[in-house]
Amino acid sequence: MQDDLRPAGRYPDMALSAWGDPAAAEPLSPDVVKLLRDALGVGEDGLGRVAPDAIRLPDPRLADDVRAALADAVGAEHVRGDAESRLLHTRGKSTPDLLRMRAGQVEDAPDAIVLPGSQDEVLAVLAACADRRVAVVPFGGGTSVVGGLEPERAGFDGVIALDLRRMNRLLDLDEISRTATLEPGLRGPEAEALLGERGFTIGHHPQSFEYATIGGFAAARSSGQASAGYGRFDERVVRLTLATPRGAIELGRAPKSAAGPDLRQLALGSEGAFGVITSVTVEVSPVPAQRVYDGWCLPSFADGATALRRLVQDGPVPTVLRLSDETETALNLAAPSEIGQGSAGTCLAIVGYEGSTESVATRRDAAGAVLRDCGGQLDEAAGASWVEGRYRGPYLRDAMLDAGALVETLETATFWSNVPALYAAVGDALRESLGAQGSPPVVLCHISHVYRSGASLYFTVGAAARDDPLAQWHAAKRTASDAIAAAGGAITHHHGVGIDHREHYAREVGPLAIAALRAVKATLDPEGIMNPGVLIA
Amino acid sequence: MQDDLRPAGRYPDMALSAWGDPAAAEPLSPDVVKLLRDALGVGEDGLGRVAPDAIRLPDPRLADDVRAALADAVGAEHVRGDAESRLLHTRGKSTPDLLRMRAGQVEDAPDAIVLPGSQDEVLAVLAACADRRVAVVPFGGGTSVVGGLEPERAGFDGVIALDLRRMNRLLDLDEISRTATLEPGLRGPEAEALLGERGFTIGHHPQSFEYATIGGFAAARSSGQASAGYGRFDERVVRLTLATPRGAIELGRAPKSAAGPDLRQLALGSEGAFGVITSVTVEVSPVPAQRVYDGWCLPSFADGATALRRLVQDGPVPTVLRLSDETETALNLAAPSEIGQGSAGTCLAIVGYEGSTESVATRRDAAGAVLRDCGGQLDEAAGASWVEGRYRGPYLRDAMLDAGALVETLETATFWSNVPALYAAVGDALRESLGAQGSPPVVLCHISHVYRSGASLYFTVGAAARDDPLAQWHAAKRTASDAIAAAGGAITHHHGVGIDHREHYAREVGPLAIAALRAVKATLDPEGIMNPGVLIA
Repeated sequence: MQDDLRPAGRYPDMALSAWGDPAAAEPLSPDVVKLLRDALGVGEDGLGRVAPDAIRLPDPRLADDVRAALADAVGAEHVRGDAESRLLHTRGKSTPDLLRMRAGQVEDAPDAIVLPGSQDEVLAVLAACADRRVAVVPFGGGTSVVGGLEPERAGFDGVIALDLRRMNRLLDLDEISRTATLEPGLRGPEAEALLGERGFTIGHHPQSFEYATIGGFAAARSSGQASAGYGRFDERVVRLTLATPRGAIELGRAPKSAAGPDLRQLALGSEGAFGVITSVTVEVSPVPAQRVYDGWCLPSFADGATALRRLVQDGPVPTVLRLSDETETALNLAAPSEIGQGSAGTCLAIVGYEGSTESVATRRDAAGAVLRDCGGQLDEAAGASWVEGRYRGPYLRDAMLDAGALVETLETATFWSNVPALYAAVGDALRESLGAQGSPPVVLCHISHVYRSGASLYFTVGAAARDDPLAQWHAAKRTASDAIAAAGGAITHHHGVGIDHREHYAREVGPLAIAALRAVKATLDPEGIMNPGVLIA
Repeated sequence: MQDDLRPAGRYPDMALSAWGDPAAAEPLSPDVVKLLRDALGVGEDGLGRVAPDAIRLPDPRLADDVRAALADAVGAEHVRGDAESRLLHTRGKSTPDLLRMRAGQVEDAPDAIVLPGSQDEVLAVLAACADRRVAVVPFGGGTSVVGGLEPERAGFDGVIALDLRRMNRLLDLDEISRTATLEPGLRGPEAEALLGERGFTIGHHPQSFEYATIGGFAAARSSGQASAGYGRFDERVVRLTLATPRGAIELGRAPKSAAGPDLRQLALGSEGAFGVITSVTVEVSPVPAQRVYDGWCLPSFADGATALRRLVQDGPVPTVLRLSDETETALNLAAPSEIGQGSAGTCLAIVGYEGSTESVATRRDAAGAVLRDCGGQLDEAAGASWVEGRYRGPYLRDAMLDAGALVETLETATFWSNVPALYAAVGDALRESLGAQGSPPVVLCHISHVYRSGASLYFTVGAAARDDPLAQWHAAKRTASDAIAAAGGAITHHHGVGIDHREHYAREVGPLAIAALRAVKATLDPEGIMNPGVLIA
């Protein structure tokens, strides 16, 4: 393989106070706006955005010698302090992040953005920052929705964002073992393009796919829309390198071994709190000859869940497998005028197959039999329409915020027998909290990822924004998180911990496990400069 | 489900200086003994065994107050100090373990055996031992072959074996989620019997299956003969409880989540060095309607490896998938008189299918096409014969030792593209080291476990025992381990680290990863009483 395979061009930066490519944003149609007003009581005033040039950034705090050390490490041209760069590296893309950005609140902007070009440069930056108590936020696609890019800066003499975009090479492709070694800064489409030209795919397509990076997928244990077929990203990782302030660790001599605990799993999900993932070797699959995505209408969420469970437990396992509840189905399928009407309709499942023509045909037939047995009816058009819109969700959220609706998502996971109880508990909690705040919400849910023993639940909530939408959401989120904990669900299935889930995460695993994590952090990052406050307090 | 489901009877204890049930041991036939003499130069004198009553045990060192505290924790009747119990808990079942036991060397026998009946009793024992600097060796089936039951006792005021046999309940069976919660002391057949009566199986069948326990499977990241179909044991674990000297940790809210690093993976493979696994929730599968095991003769090890790789990468994936090299095939298949003759023969693959009649038939057809395409020829009898002997290997080793042959196994894993180089390197190292010691060996190998990106290699070595067979083997093992490291293999695929692989394990993951593990141990086990010296020095 050639030495230096990089993407042809640079994927566009994200919009500042919104998701994705500004050119791809679309306002809501007047019908939908009217519906938001009628059904949710959304007011006339949208949630506005302060113009970028009216945002007052705090003065950068980095001392001159720190800046010089960083320039030494990566080259002066790769240390940026301009306002646009700082704004673009401020926080992630949760609704609270966007609300604060819309309001021009950027007190936590990084003091500088540093762009290393190699693992050695990463190690040099970390050493410089450890020496001078400068906090480091590893920055990939900037798509965190859990406060993963918003470290606690108290006690530090500055914060830098370590943007990994220059580390964007395909380092190796082993066609026999079907593995590819990638640098962390490659975005989803960039990695897929480099691999696709050579006949392979990772098959990892989370909703953040267009912006999120290989390093972020690994650090946050991302799960993609085709996880039923390709597995979660962490399940695809067979080898990785973690650069810490104390040096680099390389893990993964074999796909699996019994050589002690699987330490790769300590780096996966570490969210930048232990170090920077500088290379990832993932399993790749041949680009499928065929991709088919069907829609199936199931009589109820319970029937649909049974169908999904039967498929994942007894096969055949489709590549994509997801199921919307009655409300989400109604909102997605119905003409806007019907939204919020009949809730006892059907539930839409998306059932996709990727592979050889033969494998697709065989699995599609057999899965169809299971789905029919559960009362399902094929709806081919719905599959195509899902593919069309699979990355559009966050754009829609921006348009809804513009219109004055508060919209956010949250997700959890549990074992199959507990899915109905968890589903009810979270929905009730959201309706109760937002209702009590005078903004009765619409709560949508889908099963987004399935396993033999359980599944994840992904909730989308919409309500009329009140005077302080941030406080309004925080109260609802806390009530929902408490309900998740009480119902035995995981505090997050694929969004990660960040700052937002830290408290519930600590409750979930208990103080002794947190103490063990803290001991690991103290070993790898004794000065505590790595994404401070993220994952563990 | 009833509250207290335990096995009907107790599986027999192992023989003292040999594997398994003494009644199941069989001597070699005169033909095979002659062959060992002719082909390997094995001498007339076998490796004898000191009679159990001639073995001199060291005096137990436990202070009276320690013994009293242990009796308080578990009841006096569950603290044993008799000679037989102490001998039965001395070390594991590696060839060096057996050689030392045969020679009556038991200086490292535990001072007492403690049998807790619940997690609370485990916690009480650990607290008592931490208070008084008594080392604790968690003891399941006693099947370790890597020194996992032989802690370093320097600095401790005694060593106890914590035998988990009383913790042998099936605690819960969730038929919807298809998970079972089991106590750690259940042996393989006991767990399978309890689950089988209810229609389920774990499908985990390592060679140690008859003796090894649920807790041991988890603590040592065991891999079974049907791992292609059912997965490794660690892949089946969705929830577990670890009792440490600082308290208990319960991990696993969902099959998978992104709530930080997957901390279950820190307990899995921890080999008793962090604590005692007190319950394990595993995925279970319906008892298959049909089980078929075929033999396939492939033209060469390379052709066979290609066939296995194609099956695991492109499907259909059989339930059992293994491949012997030319020498192992010749030894297994040939009449004894032909052993060591033609080496350019065929290679035997065992390809098994478990599941519904339809799934078995479909997969068997499709896999057969791939195997035929790689030059394979069906040999149904070989499959049946493999099933018959699947747990017999360790008995054969005892008979070989009796006859004066030094026999041991070792294993490693790597990515597919590296399999040929690793295979050659390890075989060469063993032939070189033992040859240089005047005992040219026979080296057999099989691919024992397959993954999409790689496979494990399992070597069996036989040679004439020299005057000091222990030193003879240690030299060979070190040379082989160095060769594994140099060739990029994992130091172990499924035997674990124990004491024996500790040094190479540290080299494999590097000092920073070891420091992180040590920090975890210091957090969970500040006095360092848990299996001291095992896993990390």
